Amino acid sequence: MINIVSIIDKKANHQPLTEEEITFAVHGYASGAIPDYQMASLLMAIRLQGMNKIETSLLTKAMVSSGDVVDLSSIDGIKADKHSTGGVGDKTSLIIGPIVSALGLKLAKMSGRGLGHTGGTIDKLESIPGFNTSLASDQFLHQVKTIGMAIVGQTGQLVPADKKMYALRDVTATVQSIPLIAASIMSKKIASGAQTILLDVKFGHGAFMKTVEEATLLAKTMVDIGTQLGKDTQAMLTDMNQPLGQTIGNRLEVMEAIETLQGKGPLDLTTLCVEACAMMLVQAKAMPSLEIARVAIEKSIHDGSAYQQFVRFVSAQGGDIDAFLKPLNTPSKSIVTINATNAGYLASIHALDLGTLALSLGAGRFTKEDSIDMKAGIVLLKKQGDSVAFNDPLMTLYSDMPIDQTMKDIALAACPITSTKPTLRPLIEKVIS
Amino acid sequence: MINIVSIIDKKANHQPLTEEEITFAVHGYASGAIPDYQMASLLMAIRLQGMNKIETSLLTKAMVSSGDVVDLSSIDGIKADKHSTGGVGDKTSLIIGPIVSALGLKLAKMSGRGLGHTGGTIDKLESIPGFNTSLASDQFLHQVKTIGMAIVGQTGQLVPADKKMYALRDVTATVQSIPLIAASIMSKKIASGAQTILLDVKFGHGAFMKTVEEATLLAKTMVDIGTQLGKDTQAMLTDMNQPLGQTIGNRLEVMEAIETLQGKGPLDLTTLCVEACAMMLVQAKAMPSLEIARVAIEKSIHDGSAYQQFVRFVSAQGGDIDAFLKPLNTPSKSIVTINATNAGYLASIHALDLGTLALSLGAGRFTKEDSIDMKAGIVLLKKQGDSVAFNDPLMTLYSDMPIDQTMKDIALAACPITSTKPTLRPLIEKVIS
Repeated sequence: MINIVSIIDKKANHQPLTEEEITFAVHGYASGAIPDYQMASLLMAIRLQGMNKIETSLLTKAMVSSGDVVDLSSIDGIKADKHSTGGVGDKTSLIIGPIVSALGLKLAKMSGRGLGHTGGTIDKLESIPGFNTSLASDQFLHQVKTIGMAIVGQTGQLVPADKKMYALRDVTATVQSIPLIAASIMSKKIASGAQTILLDVKFGHGAFMKTVEEATLLAKTMVDIGTQLGKDTQAMLTDMNQPLGQTIGNRLEVMEAIETLQGKGPLDLTTLCVEACAMMLVQAKAMPSLEIARVAIEKSIHDGSAYQQFVRFVSAQGGDIDAFLKPLNTPSKSIVTINATNAGYLASIHALDLGTLALSLGAGRFTKEDSIDMKAGIVLLKKQGDSVAFNDPLMTLYSDMPIDQTMKDIALAACPITSTKPTLRPLIEKVIS
Repeated sequence: MINIVSIIDKKANHQPLTEEEITFAVHGYASGAIPDYQMASLLMAIRLQGMNKIETSLLTKAMVSSGDVVDLSSIDGIKADKHSTGGVGDKTSLIIGPIVSALGLKLAKMSGRGLGHTGGTIDKLESIPGFNTSLASDQFLHQVKTIGMAIVGQTGQLVPADKKMYALRDVTATVQSIPLIAASIMSKKIASGAQTILLDVKFGHGAFMKTVEEATLLAKTMVDIGTQLGKDTQAMLTDMNQPLGQTIGNRLEVMEAIETLQGKGPLDLTTLCVEACAMMLVQAKAMPSLEIARVAIEKSIHDGSAYQQFVRFVSAQGGDIDAFLKPLNTPSKSIVTINATNAGYLASIHALDLGTLALSLGAGRFTKEDSIDMKAGIVLLKKQGDSVAFNDPLMTLYSDMPIDQTMKDIALAACPITSTKPTLRPLIEKVIS
């Protein structure tokens, strides 16, 4: 007879669990038959003893089957999905979605809200007046069929085991576990029903994975899971040691996404989006090679079709793009520019500290109940490697709250200036497929 | 600010916890401020990452201070205590208590009930008509002052953290942890208020520790805890590969204890008790050497003072020793003798299997709610190393339930007979002080 205590003991003894045991534990926990304290003990045993490739895939599979799976079979064409592990200033979904759907892919995307120092796509979209992030299921499918893309918030019926396990991991010090992180992300991607998955795994102090090694392991683990469970899955490892692009904050980031779709975006953000789109198009076999895909992507940006697709998508979900683009009637009450106190080169921009500072300015939530100041945030005026003269503006802070000296000090300290030009590492460290 | 998630994370990262952190976790759990799921995660982290000597002592200290500590200061003389980690046929407390208290030590002992294949002293004493195992605190102290010894059940106010942690460990696969086992045992010993502690750590298949190595580690850990917390603590490692003495079962064991106190007990049981008493007397500085102590112990047995002390103790707690010694009005309904099916030497006696068989005969509890058949049990007629002729009786089983063929088969299989005389290992493997 299978029982949870012997399953926990087996994992504590470093033995691999079977499909039956993993499913028993995950479904039992989702249904409430297995209490929190037994799952907590199992999660700690998994954190400390690990899980092999097969176990990790079985864990993901059991999590997926704990709830509904989105059926995208009524939609023609290749249903693609992408996921970023989250970083500071990461607005790529807003750019990639319109480009790949303008070029024929179907993107039925479920996204999360921001919590902590990384923002969420859903929050960003809600800075557009009227934008509706909770479509009914048939409305969602209809929009993907007709427009080519839709982005909505996650529903409760999708991977209920993950929802419950994630909440428990957060309070039992079992978040730090590659198999558990990978299964959590991949279960939601797989339940979302897409055929191809591109993962943007970020590393650096602004990301959850601090080192390239950790990020590589997570990326490989997720690609293995996807492949085991029959999805074409690839991953890119990208640098999150400085914020992506020039803006942090919901409205500011949507504005920057629009500029990027219009060919006026910053280089790092543009490069990352073009490469991600190219990979997705080749993955979906919509383009024969990355080179050909890149040409098509550049064309979609320069002929306006990518931006038109963005407008179509936003309008379909009720968003008023004209209202969004108008100058603000009530700009932020506090607008402060941070100037350099010495000259040289910008050695780095501490993404984590600026992500946290943006939270303090009102751009995100410290707790789930907090409300967001959509216009709050940071605009970077210099990026890593730029030359800086004394008193040059480094960034501008926007908030409806007073910006005190501590905040200014944090902003300045996040931009160390050195006399020698720093060596820049490539934005895309590697690709794992 | 101290918080439980970072304490769990610290232990998961294999870092030693501070006194403040350990106390926060243990007292928080005992008070209900820390929920089961967080303690379960911490216990699994401790099972897998261990605890050093200092942490283990601090854990014990925190558990002790979660409740009351018995104050024995009003009792003159040396207050000694002994504890056995539990085995099959272990009735030593019933013999050791009267001997050492007859020789001047004070024994204010709290004992447990049996659960699983090992019996409990409290259950054994309750086979004596009228014996009261729950004395009020002042009555308990008064009896120790006047008679020299008392044995009662544990009260709920003593180490409430252990009670709660033990129940949780049982259902979260965190029982198997030397620091947790050691802290659980030692917290109760220390809260019981004695000045000297002798531990009888059993090893073998009839014990919780299966190997000498595990038992040695547990014994060393417990001696370290006692020493750190200011108690003179010593341990003996004793063999539990065969049952101790010749009886298993509550009434049968009390009868054997009486015989041993009268100098008519089996060799192994007598030897173990004499050595344990000698160690306790030297530990308490009541005797200058083990040799002198042994002489005094033998004398107390042969001049009847040890047995008289047993009668005095039993009577003080309301036990009717005459009624107990009378032949039973209603003997066991089923009495079956198991005979050898071949000739040779008894290679071993499987203590765990016989302990479990005794449970099935009604001598113990499978669950806390079960009632006990006091007369049920097993009398061994041969011990390991004895020569056996074909059809020689090996043991007698007593039960009020029918004894079926399966039970007989288990009994026979527990006594393998070989053609060569087995090498017997010493009953007392080593002493740790």
